[in-house]
Amino acid sequence: MYLARVTGSVVSTQKSPSLTGKKLLLVRRVNDDGAFDGARSLPDEVAVDSVGAGEGELVLVTCGSSARRVFPEPNDAIDQAIVAIVDNVSR
Amino acid sequence: MYLARVTGSVVSTQKSPSLTGKKLLLVRRVNDDGAFDGARSLPDEVAVDSVGAGEGELVLVTCGSSARRVFPEPNDAIDQAIVAIVDNVSR
Amino acid sequence: MYLARVTGSVVSTQKSPSLTGKKLLLVRRVNDDGAFDGARSLPDEVAVDSVGAGEGELVLVTCGSSARRVFPEPNDAIDQAIVAIVDNVSR
Amino acid sequence: MYLARVTGSVVSTQKSPSLTGKKLLLVRRVNDDGAFDGARSLPDEVAVDSVGAGEGELVLVTCGSSARRVFPEPNDAIDQAIVAIVDNVSR
Amino acid sequence: MYLARVTGSVVSTQKSPSLTGKKLLLVRRVNDDGAFDGARSLPDEVAVDSVGAGEGELVLVTCGSSARRVFPEPNDAIDQAIVAIVDNVSR
Repeated sequence: MYLARVTGSVVSTQKSPSLTGKKLLLVRRVNDDGAFDGARSLPDEVAVDSVGAGEGELVLVTCGSSARRVFPEPNDAIDQAIVAIVDNVSR
Repeated sequence: MYLARVTGSVVSTQKSPSLTGKKLLLVRRVNDDGAFDGARSLPDEVAVDSVGAGEGELVLVTCGSSARRVFPEPNDAIDQAIVAIVDNVSR
Repeated sequence: MYLARVTGSVVSTQKSPSLTGKKLLLVRRVNDDGAFDGARSLPDEVAVDSVGAGEGELVLVTCGSSARRVFPEPNDAIDQAIVAIVDNVSR
Repeated sequence: MYLARVTGSVVSTQKSPSLTGKKLLLVRRVNDDGAFDGARSLPDEVAVDSVGAGEGELVLVTCGSSARRVFPEPNDAIDQAIVAIVDNVSR
Repeated sequence: MYLARVTGSVVSTQKSPSLTGKKLLLVRRVNDDGAFDGARSLPDEVAVDSVGAGEGELVLVTCGSSARRVFPEPNDAIDQAIVAIVDNVSR
């Protein structure tokens, strides 16, 4: 999983049926201090929300087949999912 | 998933049977503003279209086993799929 | 698998049920000398602990579906797991 | 999938039984113009040929579990496969 | 798969049961000439040996679920495996 900030959302009408009714959020990797410094060269990703996350929140994103399994079927098109809203990062 | 712009297509006669009759599109990662700036050092990818996408459109691409599952069998060779045409990115 | 140093932990109340009761640790890739020099441009990752690892320890992290399988179900959201505490790296 | 040029081959006697009798080809990522410019910082990969590709040809390479599934069992060790010879890239 | 040089080994007492009795080797990506030049910015990886590889040898490493499948169960924690010792790279 990686730490990310929700920075926006994506709207799509023509999409895989497995994405219908799901929230597609733009996420940007951040470091453990919640800033973008170490991750600024990485483009944003789009993750499907599973925990009620909103814009500006610090979240955990999981990738690959694990992201798909977080959702009931049909879930085929999903390869990134927001699986936690972060309360606190302790270092 | 990642945001990408469709930049072209690939023609192949000698290919895996699971790619027969499928549209192979060149896609280039973009940032949330639809531009290439943050992603310019990444080479293009080739994704199989599942939503009727065309050149120049902004799309969502999914990777790995999730991409394969978007298509009925035979789908073995597929590891990247276009799963949505993006109407709008809100930031 | 990759070598990493545990640098902190993440607390989350609102999360995937499959993460309940699990320790979410911040990990940072290191080279074979345990230093960060070659890996400094990579952002931290968050891995689920399976071996009782603590802050400051040198560990091995596994990724993808293998990380998920290290835990009994429900384990859906897991895509990175700490699977070993390193005693020694011999070069 | 990604576009690559076949640049050589790898010979190995001591290998996983699932690689016996298979052609192991060196592949180097290229951009849509068939050149190496945008991809020059990436090291070569080794992919198993499934379509009769030869040195110098422009090919499509698929990754992960999809690459494995392109071959009948035993196919366990395969994580990258050449799945198409490219006739033409249209941009 | 990728070409790598075995550069050392990792010793761990406290680890996933699926790693017991297995050889954990440090591997460093190399280019097709066996040198590190193009790959020097990548940190080392740790792969489980399946072919009797030793320090200094040029090997092929496979990733993901394919790496896991190279070993009989229990193999859960494995996401990278050495699957071939390279005799020769022809370019």
